[in-house]
Amino acid sequence: MKAEIIAVGSELLLGEIANTNAQYLSEWLASCGIDVHYHSVVGDNEARMTDVFKQAQARTDLLVITGGLGPTEDDLTKEVLAKLLGRRLQVDEVAYNRIEGFLKTRGRMMTDNEKKQALVIEGADVLSNGAGLAPGMSLKTADHQYILLPGVPREMKQIIADHFDHLFGQETIKSRTLRFFGIGESALNDRLTDLIRSSQNPSIAPYAELAEVRLRLTAKAAQEQVAIEMLDGLERLVLAEVEDYFYGYGETSLPEVVLRTCEEAGVTLAAAESLTGGAFASGLTDIAGASNSFRGGAVVYDDAAKRNLLSVSETLLREQTAVSADVAIAMAEGARRLYQSNLAIALTGEAGPTSNSGKAVGTVYCALATPDGTEVVEFTYPAFDRGMIRLRSVKDAYFLLLKYLKKNAVQPK
Amino acid sequence: MKAEIIAVGSELLLGEIANTNAQYLSEWLASCGIDVHYHSVVGDNEARMTDVFKQAQARTDLLVITGGLGPTEDDLTKEVLAKLLGRRLQVDEVAYNRIEGFLKTRGRMMTDNEKKQALVIEGADVLSNGAGLAPGMSLKTADHQYILLPGVPREMKQIIADHFDHLFGQETIKSRTLRFFGIGESALNDRLTDLIRSSQNPSIAPYAELAEVRLRLTAKAAQEQVAIEMLDGLERLVLAEVEDYFYGYGETSLPEVVLRTCEEAGVTLAAAESLTGGAFASGLTDIAGASNSFRGGAVVYDDAAKRNLLSVSETLLREQTAVSADVAIAMAEGARRLYQSNLAIALTGEAGPTSNSGKAVGTVYCALATPDGTEVVEFTYPAFDRGMIRLRSVKDAYFLLLKYLKKNAVQPK
Repeated sequence: MKAEIIAVGSELLLGEIANTNAQYLSEWLASCGIDVHYHSVVGDNEARMTDVFKQAQARTDLLVITGGLGPTEDDLTKEVLAKLLGRRLQVDEVAYNRIEGFLKTRGRMMTDNEKKQALVIEGADVLSNGAGLAPGMSLKTADHQYILLPGVPREMKQIIADHFDHLFGQETIKSRTLRFFGIGESALNDRLTDLIRSSQNPSIAPYAELAEVRLRLTAKAAQEQVAIEMLDGLERLVLAEVEDYFYGYGETSLPEVVLRTCEEAGVTLAAAESLTGGAFASGLTDIAGASNSFRGGAVVYDDAAKRNLLSVSETLLREQTAVSADVAIAMAEGARRLYQSNLAIALTGEAGPTSNSGKAVGTVYCALATPDGTEVVEFTYPAFDRGMIRLRSVKDAYFLLLKYLKKNAVQPK
Repeated sequence: MKAEIIAVGSELLLGEIANTNAQYLSEWLASCGIDVHYHSVVGDNEARMTDVFKQAQARTDLLVITGGLGPTEDDLTKEVLAKLLGRRLQVDEVAYNRIEGFLKTRGRMMTDNEKKQALVIEGADVLSNGAGLAPGMSLKTADHQYILLPGVPREMKQIIADHFDHLFGQETIKSRTLRFFGIGESALNDRLTDLIRSSQNPSIAPYAELAEVRLRLTAKAAQEQVAIEMLDGLERLVLAEVEDYFYGYGETSLPEVVLRTCEEAGVTLAAAESLTGGAFASGLTDIAGASNSFRGGAVVYDDAAKRNLLSVSETLLREQTAVSADVAIAMAEGARRLYQSNLAIALTGEAGPTSNSGKAVGTVYCALATPDGTEVVEFTYPAFDRGMIRLRSVKDAYFLLLKYLKKNAVQPK
């Protein structure tokens, strides 16, 4: 099946927002084994929308259309498509009641514009919108399938998640994402070459992301349970090869997994940061509930702060410089004392652009202080990108913590 | 002039990357007074590329094409377009020598693929690539103008920046971006309604960005100097209305302006963060040279840390709770002492999802400790988004610092 993804909205053509929906939908359709041949963006203009829809009909089988389902006059998608297909628009009771209920809680009556959101094309399967008021639609004709989705990314993703399984034909489609860190995309591909080549259904697709790799596994089957078992089987084969780098499923992140693991173990954390300057702590505290495990962190950007807050010795700083394994160890142990935590991470290094310590830009020391002593690791990153050095350092520190927590049962204080 | 932006690359259709180039180019073209009617994305496939180019010729005057200029076999853009226009490809000496020189420094000879990058369509103006090897092109025919750009965003932006002024006709086009914080897009629009409506050339376009607003001013004139004077004049009119919210030009950011201002004044900074958990410090240390002014910060996520590091009194924490103006003041003064800095910022508040202090989620206290005493401000943000509360808090803190630095001459310690 050949597909075209069409986004409707003048704000895209003015450059006010990027068409991130097209990327999300492309990955989703690829995982369903559907070839996306084109993306198109068109403004809120009936004539131009009609031309774009016609042309998509002529060159593809599946049209996935985002945007233009809202309450305002310039939301024209379903009106234009219905006209093109010679179908009427009719009120969907469920959507109507949902809008009415939503407005009641705000003590308001429904306007005609708001009512417009409950209109659907006759013959379409209505895709309830769990995150908003305008429902999506899936419509099959003799030659084409049309999927209409809201332009708001959160609503679009919610509808896909809720109706994913059965949008295409009778088969159930199930998808699962595995997250890896510490291995590059090409290295992961090499380790899994045979598996990826031999896997049609279930299938494997790798995606590179800020110093991480995601693997998306997708299975199609007549029954849901069968699809799930196919995913379980493939996941076992994948992890047998690269489990050392696996850290979580789906939409999670390294700091989130670190915090959940600490919470389950009843372990507390602290941090001492030089080159990362608070990015490690900030990544943790981005996550709701961080305070259950994270005690806090000291950003010690100059040597005076390293001495005053963490009692790193003046001699050590003079003899080894701040960018050294011994200073990293002293910082981690200082933070563990200061915050009275079970574990403490320290990060010091050269983020560049120039080196003050004599060490090469991209040299980073990460120490982990624990009840059983302190370990330190040296990382070396490409020197060209300060931001990437900081990002990689922070993620390597999370991963170091995670590996330690998996190996050792820490006694909570 | 009607334009279509065409991105070539199968990686876009697979969802491996988002088409951010189209957003950048749309804003740029809008600022030049060119109406973008369509975006298209097509894979590295000669037949489909040809169809997409033909259709763009039929419906627009200007085709801006990104991607497919690289050295690999599937880079086909200039080959396909040249064939469609019945033109030959010829070696551009400048590009050729640039590639040769680049390879020499690596002690390598040029392969045919690499040589391919020096080929340009006959009759095209070559747009030198300051950030890579494959040059861009601008080609005018009787009915159309074609602009070919690399797909790598950094290279595409560099070429636009270097060749922006004279890509369209004889006129010089100059653009300038002003950055504002502390005022919403609609409020800024209201303040500038008449100015925006009455400004055709030079023109004003507002863009909302993570709790900020950008104004893009663009002027067209026969001579460059005239265009610049037009921008100066319009900028004066804009700032006369909303100077209180203006903080910088172009690609800068609030933390960068804060650091530059501190550096010029020889002033040092520190931070104490509760709800923002290191995000304030991390934003500063993202910027090269932060160590010249930023001493460090204490992430004090629990009350014990607030007491131990910043000597916030137990009584105060018990009576006022950690989310209070008095605790914010004590934290800021504690950080100023601890890091021996001229100024210190403290942030404490309820980021949610639930409130532990009894204060409403979204309540934030920001204190600024200075040689002349400590001021504290209460901010109230919408409660629904933890990430947005943290982001807004951090930016409000930067802006508070900035306003103080502009008003007061701080005596460096």
